[in-house]
Amino acid sequence: MSISIAIHGGAGTVRAADLTEAMTEARHEGLRRALRAGFAVLAGGGAALDAVSAAVCALEDDPLFNAGHGAVMTDAGTIEMDAAIMNGADRRAGAVAGICGPRNPVLAARAVMETTPHVLMIGAGALGVARDAGLVFAPPSYFETPNRRAALERELVRRASGAPDTRSDADRHGTVGAVARDAAGHLAAATSTGGMTGKRAGRVGDTPIIGAGTYADDVCAVSCTGTGEVFMRYTVAAEIAARVRYKGETVAQAAGEVVAELATQGGDGGLIALGASGVPALPFNSSGMYRGYVDAEGMLRTAIHREVFHIVNR
Amino acid sequence: MSISIAIHGGAGTVRAADLTEAMTEARHEGLRRALRAGFAVLAGGGAALDAVSAAVCALEDDPLFNAGHGAVMTDAGTIEMDAAIMNGADRRAGAVAGICGPRNPVLAARAVMETTPHVLMIGAGALGVARDAGLVFAPPSYFETPNRRAALERELVRRASGAPDTRSDADRHGTVGAVARDAAGHLAAATSTGGMTGKRAGRVGDTPIIGAGTYADDVCAVSCTGTGEVFMRYTVAAEIAARVRYKGETVAQAAGEVVAELATQGGDGGLIALGASGVPALPFNSSGMYRGYVDAEGMLRTAIHREVFHIVNR
Repeated sequence: MSISIAIHGGAGTVRAADLTEAMTEARHEGLRRALRAGFAVLAGGGAALDAVSAAVCALEDDPLFNAGHGAVMTDAGTIEMDAAIMNGADRRAGAVAGICGPRNPVLAARAVMETTPHVLMIGAGALGVARDAGLVFAPPSYFETPNRRAALERELVRRASGAPDTRSDADRHGTVGAVARDAAGHLAAATSTGGMTGKRAGRVGDTPIIGAGTYADDVCAVSCTGTGEVFMRYTVAAEIAARVRYKGETVAQAAGEVVAELATQGGDGGLIALGASGVPALPFNSSGMYRGYVDAEGMLRTAIHREVFHIVNR
Repeated sequence: MSISIAIHGGAGTVRAADLTEAMTEARHEGLRRALRAGFAVLAGGGAALDAVSAAVCALEDDPLFNAGHGAVMTDAGTIEMDAAIMNGADRRAGAVAGICGPRNPVLAARAVMETTPHVLMIGAGALGVARDAGLVFAPPSYFETPNRRAALERELVRRASGAPDTRSDADRHGTVGAVARDAAGHLAAATSTGGMTGKRAGRVGDTPIIGAGTYADDVCAVSCTGTGEVFMRYTVAAEIAARVRYKGETVAQAAGEVVAELATQGGDGGLIALGASGVPALPFNSSGMYRGYVDAEGMLRTAIHREVFHIVNR
């Protein structure tokens, strides 16, 4: 059985017209860095769970993506991050919401899964689990970047003026995630986010909700990005698994249909999904979705909008 | 189309041998009070959403059930409540987690649904939504009851001594919930809980997770109670809807099979579910589940363990 990995850096992409060549290349390189990190685990015989951890950590460490370092800010000027991870073979899962502390929130989610009997921990309780697990912490200044602070200030000025919301998708939502299949055929998924710029403090989206933004079992692994509330109400990730299991759809069919239906319900965004075939599906209904996968020839394929994939050697 | 309502007061029941006749009767009467509150809404032409709100408020107000007044305590001696509500016709949903303040947490969940663009709010942010919505607040002393404090102290002593966990289900988990169908055929579900006695502060179970502990769409409404973590990993409520939608199972079949399968995965508990037939399903795999419904003749039927339903006039 062949190994496979796909990642996303969020459906919140900068408008193509606003991206310089250097900005574009930096984003492709960020995606490739994450693919390499995850693929190296799989190629070394590692588990899908470790591969998605590694890929999401790489995206969290990259300030260009809305998770970890470079997470967006709440309306209170704070940073509140959410993350989840799930292991398909035994459906173990861990998630955290509303935290600022662990350098890699996805590792805090994993600590919840591996060191507690719980699935979801929030706030100070989640920080306690991360501390007990010996995770590396960082001060709020590590997560905050000048770009995200400026985006919040623009948004607060806009709200105060009553002007219409003309933000690009990049300011409205963004998430990072990974799905992988290892040589044993096991699937895993992980997702991490800072949420939406100017979100109300205390708001939790679909990312840390098992069956909404993150899910893995023995038929598919899914990580979502987009208008979190709609993804929660439609239990998007669980819905894809259910269609594969009970309607006999392929993962690609189910993922594509669900993303198309979401568009009719105000659910902008997309997702990455992986099943038994090992060929990832990366559908989105927004203007773009930072995304990538390693193809059957072992090449790194990455894309941002609807252009053809950039193909680069590992 | 006929109106219908079912409720549960948690799968965490006191052992039959430990229940005096007076204790038993108090619990039946608590269930009947909640059924009357919800049924009155439906009989008056009200919406399923209002009926489940009313029924869950009645159970939250009753100190015998683990939600609102009489919620269990965390290992830190605090009370952290979770609640969710969902309207099937348009899949609007609201939920809160980790809160102590609003007298009726289910109304805070409803305020999230009705006054914000969000689905899930936690901690201080959730309290802000409740305050802005004008909800009645109560001090921590309102929620705490001597019985719950004593249960926590017993549990902390047990943990310190390393003795095995011989708690009854009542000390381990408990939740309240309601599902209803109104005269227009619309479904709704609501769930509310204090969690588990001695739970780690910051732990969130399945109750406020749409698709896990609470869910409603146009084919079914579901409210769960039990080992929350397992219910989350198996996206129990969404799974029942998926089986009805894609496997052609009845709500009763799907609910019964899922509860039986959960037992094999360490998922103790049960759920109430209601679909197009209007006949509620109330399966559980634990020793008991406080539960009740209004039957086709308009009689109040309530039960605790596996005895025959008590039948009382409205």
